[in-house]
Amino acid sequence: MSEPSCRLYYWPSIPGRGEFVRLAFEDAGTPYVDVARLTKQEGGGVAAMTALLEGKGPPHSLLPFAPPILVWQDLVLAQTAHILQWLGPRIGLAPDDERGRLDAHQLQLTIADLVGEAHDVHHPVAVSLYYKEQKPEALRRAGHFTRERIPKFLGYLERVLERNAKRGAPYAVGDRASYVDLSLFQLLAGLRFAFPQAMARLAPTIPRLAALAEEVAARPRLRAYLASSRRLAFNKDGIFRYYPELDSDEDR
Amino acid sequence: MSEPSCRLYYWPSIPGRGEFVRLAFEDAGTPYVDVARLTKQEGGGVAAMTALLEGKGPPHSLLPFAPPILVWQDLVLAQTAHILQWLGPRIGLAPDDERGRLDAHQLQLTIADLVGEAHDVHHPVAVSLYYKEQKPEALRRAGHFTRERIPKFLGYLERVLERNAKRGAPYAVGDRASYVDLSLFQLLAGLRFAFPQAMARLAPTIPRLAALAEEVAARPRLRAYLASSRRLAFNKDGIFRYYPELDSDEDR
Repeated sequence: MSEPSCRLYYWPSIPGRGEFVRLAFEDAGTPYVDVARLTKQEGGGVAAMTALLEGKGPPHSLLPFAPPILVWQDLVLAQTAHILQWLGPRIGLAPDDERGRLDAHQLQLTIADLVGEAHDVHHPVAVSLYYKEQKPEALRRAGHFTRERIPKFLGYLERVLERNAKRGAPYAVGDRASYVDLSLFQLLAGLRFAFPQAMARLAPTIPRLAALAEEVAARPRLRAYLASSRRLAFNKDGIFRYYPELDSDEDR
Repeated sequence: MSEPSCRLYYWPSIPGRGEFVRLAFEDAGTPYVDVARLTKQEGGGVAAMTALLEGKGPPHSLLPFAPPILVWQDLVLAQTAHILQWLGPRIGLAPDDERGRLDAHQLQLTIADLVGEAHDVHHPVAVSLYYKEQKPEALRRAGHFTRERIPKFLGYLERVLERNAKRGAPYAVGDRASYVDLSLFQLLAGLRFAFPQAMARLAPTIPRLAALAEEVAARPRLRAYLASSRRLAFNKDGIFRYYPELDSDEDR
């Protein structure tokens, strides 16, 4: 990537959707500015992100709807999968061929769908309400999510790995790691944090995903990143939240 | 587009997400095969779609997760926005420049998010349950959706049109109609069908979106399509459903 560095705008206190982008930068060893985590004095903070959402970004750029937002020169990109589709080839984390890139983006969009559904488990009524204000609905949704949706999505992703393994590669697409593999690692990490019992039950059915996640976590730059203070822990404000009562397969 | 025609696989009885793809083909006047709407004897039906989802598509193609699915030669594309990103430039319904194409895809992904939220209004607990089995949750979600989410998304899209209008174009991106404009038409049509009162209240705030939707519906090929039997009506099985009790701004 040529200078200046990409600027990433995302909530500074949660891994959330921004983490899928951070992982790509960190694994590639590509410098980036995590703007909202800088101080106000450094030109950062949430206010810098809000300004972008209010249309104070580069002139003639598309107004973004929500973070994460990536700014490079006068280009403004939003939507996680869209950002990664643009970024991946520029930092060596996408397949070289057109077909592979199409497949990678399609998988990333399906990962995004599962991430959205995971969020809505604790927010099935409205994002404007607290979890505790929609807990009965969340309890009901959680059972279906852990019994039906996680197995459906992860079963699909396991099959994708199985099909690619027949071509000799333990990755989602092509014969080397791409941003999709990093995202699969993060997806598994999030689901395991939020739904440890459900994921333990499911473990025997997703050996390839589990092995891939381990391999990704062991990549030298990522291992260093994951041990650093730059890596934000999952918590009770993000997409993946651990509420023991939601990690149940009870039918409510 | 070179022969053979693209094959679209989508549920034969609802407009749903497939309609965003159909509109692009119809507006461009590009022949396509709407596979699941053919009879079994013609090689169609839902079974043909199920076969794809079971991995019986072209060898070495990516396994799709869900419809709509577009097949062209041995390429298999799923995810509505992904399909349109690939298809748009090939049928003259995308901006010519790279930047415009990025903007178009980003907008389409945001439209897809709103479409997903509109679906979840009647299915806030689980897709595996009927609406009547999750009606209390749906009633609660609907109020937030019509009061908060529709205005937020459509307000954003109106601003996008406003910003592009300053460059002299009444379209979402660039200086001519793209697949995004067709999708905005369909989005408005769906929301008006499902939430007529909420949309009537909101009408004064979205003049540009309303004008664009009218212009799109008047495009000669689309006008003919919309009057044809190929156009599926909204109904009670699709994404946009009219349940009067959900078209309310009551706080439950």
